[in-house]
Amino acid sequence: MDIQQESLKLHRQWKGKIEVVSRVEVKDKTALSLAYTPGVAEPCLAIKDDVNRSYDYTRRWNLVAVITDGSAVLGLGDIGPEAGMPVMEGKCVLFKVFADVDAFPICIKSRDVDEIVNTIKLISGSFGGINLEDISAPRCFEIEKRLKAECDIPVFHDDQHGTAVVTLAALINALKITGRDIGDVSVVINGSGAAGIAVTRLLLSVGLKDVVLCDRMGAIYSGRDGLNSEKADIATITNPERRKGSLKEVIAGADVFIGLSGPGLVTGDMVRSMARDPIIFAMANPIPEIMPDEAREAGARVIGTGRSDFPNQINNVLAFPGIFRGALDVRARDINNEMKIAAAYAIASLVSDDELSEEYILPAPFDTRVGKTVAAAVAEAARKTGAARI
Amino acid sequence: MDIQQESLKLHRQWKGKIEVVSRVEVKDKTALSLAYTPGVAEPCLAIKDDVNRSYDYTRRWNLVAVITDGSAVLGLGDIGPEAGMPVMEGKCVLFKVFADVDAFPICIKSRDVDEIVNTIKLISGSFGGINLEDISAPRCFEIEKRLKAECDIPVFHDDQHGTAVVTLAALINALKITGRDIGDVSVVINGSGAAGIAVTRLLLSVGLKDVVLCDRMGAIYSGRDGLNSEKADIATITNPERRKGSLKEVIAGADVFIGLSGPGLVTGDMVRSMARDPIIFAMANPIPEIMPDEAREAGARVIGTGRSDFPNQINNVLAFPGIFRGALDVRARDINNEMKIAAAYAIASLVSDDELSEEYILPAPFDTRVGKTVAAAVAEAARKTGAARI
Repeated sequence: MDIQQESLKLHRQWKGKIEVVSRVEVKDKTALSLAYTPGVAEPCLAIKDDVNRSYDYTRRWNLVAVITDGSAVLGLGDIGPEAGMPVMEGKCVLFKVFADVDAFPICIKSRDVDEIVNTIKLISGSFGGINLEDISAPRCFEIEKRLKAECDIPVFHDDQHGTAVVTLAALINALKITGRDIGDVSVVINGSGAAGIAVTRLLLSVGLKDVVLCDRMGAIYSGRDGLNSEKADIATITNPERRKGSLKEVIAGADVFIGLSGPGLVTGDMVRSMARDPIIFAMANPIPEIMPDEAREAGARVIGTGRSDFPNQINNVLAFPGIFRGALDVRARDINNEMKIAAAYAIASLVSDDELSEEYILPAPFDTRVGKTVAAAVAEAARKTGAARI
Repeated sequence: MDIQQESLKLHRQWKGKIEVVSRVEVKDKTALSLAYTPGVAEPCLAIKDDVNRSYDYTRRWNLVAVITDGSAVLGLGDIGPEAGMPVMEGKCVLFKVFADVDAFPICIKSRDVDEIVNTIKLISGSFGGINLEDISAPRCFEIEKRLKAECDIPVFHDDQHGTAVVTLAALINALKITGRDIGDVSVVINGSGAAGIAVTRLLLSVGLKDVVLCDRMGAIYSGRDGLNSEKADIATITNPERRKGSLKEVIAGADVFIGLSGPGLVTGDMVRSMARDPIIFAMANPIPEIMPDEAREAGARVIGTGRSDFPNQINNVLAFPGIFRGALDVRARDINNEMKIAAAYAIASLVSDDELSEEYILPAPFDTRVGKTVAAAVAEAARKTGAARI
């Protein structure tokens, strides 16, 4: 089957992957007067008196907006707002299927950070959470940061944090196999876009000390020329030895490689130059930084990719549905770092010590325990950190 | 039954009157790869090449946003954006039930015309149409006017045009009963908010010549003190004799009274002062300008109200679902005046000459012919006027 052509054909048949339906029957005048005027005035007045009641009397308690500007859609780049919508609708389907969250796709026709922030902020009263999607770096960092500060509902850029959570989950279990502690390992991350930066920050927050982040120019270090503000910030908390050089140079001796970059950027020789039993997460899509067979041949102990046709698929769908489910369940005002860490440990916990192996470090996307387990852990973390409102 | 308290209880049970559901099953890896990555890249690229394909590959072809700022909700006034959402969800239910349109409710946290216009414009690529709702006058006029100019999808303020269409439909049939032609009658309209202005304009566009619009200060005439720009505009095309005075003074001798104002503003004596066989549309909600019994006693020949518990309910639900259904069906770029007139005649046509009587001038809201008949007429008018894209 040609997946691309089949998908195109199916999209034409589906006529949209999501639909808005009515939850109430309106068959007669009485039903009309209860669901609409004059009865509806009463819930309106209740919300006017206390805006929190919008979670009781409207769908807000279960509603997430999936929002893009179309500037970094999949690996396709800047294809425009409307062209990003098939992905947004797909994401909404996953929210519903994996965590029973109502998600609604919205594209914004602007590339201006102020306009995008203001638009989302002004419509945020309609939703219980905001999932940002496929917005290019470095704009995505400022957009998310400002929205988190200005909105009283959770704002979560999945390309950053969903990827970070599931990568941390994979690393937790891979390190169990190689018998190492995150505080003792050295990690090289290639790709300093939205995902690379977020993975780096999340790993640092759970005790990683030795990490070097690379971009197309090689290792990022404090003071290097041509760093944008996000990279300059990350340089101050990574690469403490200020190592310089290409990916090939800095990967030598590392315990873990995490690729969020492009196809074929890692060779067998580079894997051979790493410490013993290296962990390789080659997550570029659809073609990884190194193909699993080649990495295995070069001595990699644990190998993960973004693909479903190899073992250890490191897939955001393990994270974002349950994270929002948990956040919505406790009406969280934010998805904070503790909630993300809790999600990662919850995902990792679903692979028991007996099951854990080089070829099985993460639960499958269709494991029905995932959404619920992640949601419960995220809700608990929200309560502990004061992010929960109920 | 206490409708208000029952409605409040039901709203709590419903937990939202709308829901977003998936139209595709995602049960295994193959389904995931077709509805989401990597297959979804193909419809994205198709839309990138031609943005019109967003109507083929996403739900846009059937999607209407129902948008408010919460500034004029029902008769409750300015209750705030979130508090307006039970009405918006109710409206979305009616769109679905009466015309199978997917409608999604959005509230905007702003009272600034520029901000509201810009926000709606920037998200308009997500939808096939925009229904504005419960936005206070005179801001609503400028917001709609600018959005119509700047968006390439239909923008329709239902409080104005839905009301105007259904009022025209009612008037067409009421005039058949009294055997008069619209070009020959004199009409007094009380209430110069969104609805009053729009009704006046639509009636003028089908041949009404003698109309006086009143506000709280009485008849509006060219040059009167304290007119906002919308009223000043309407003054130039109404009240050609520049009649001055209170509603009580100008209603004397009129053939038709249309009330879009407040409770009890018309007395039996005022009806008695009108021409013979007067038509009274007392549409203030929930309490009309004059109760039907009193109007009948004073000699009114045809009486309509906004209420479902009297004959001749003049209800927007007869208009907006079918109007958007028709506009979406031909991918209209606008809902123009010809389309509104076509909708009114379509509604009126559903009462046959045999059925037509003083107590039956409009089809019932639950008459299943209404949505389809209005949609067909609107689509045809869109094609004739060049507003249709397919």
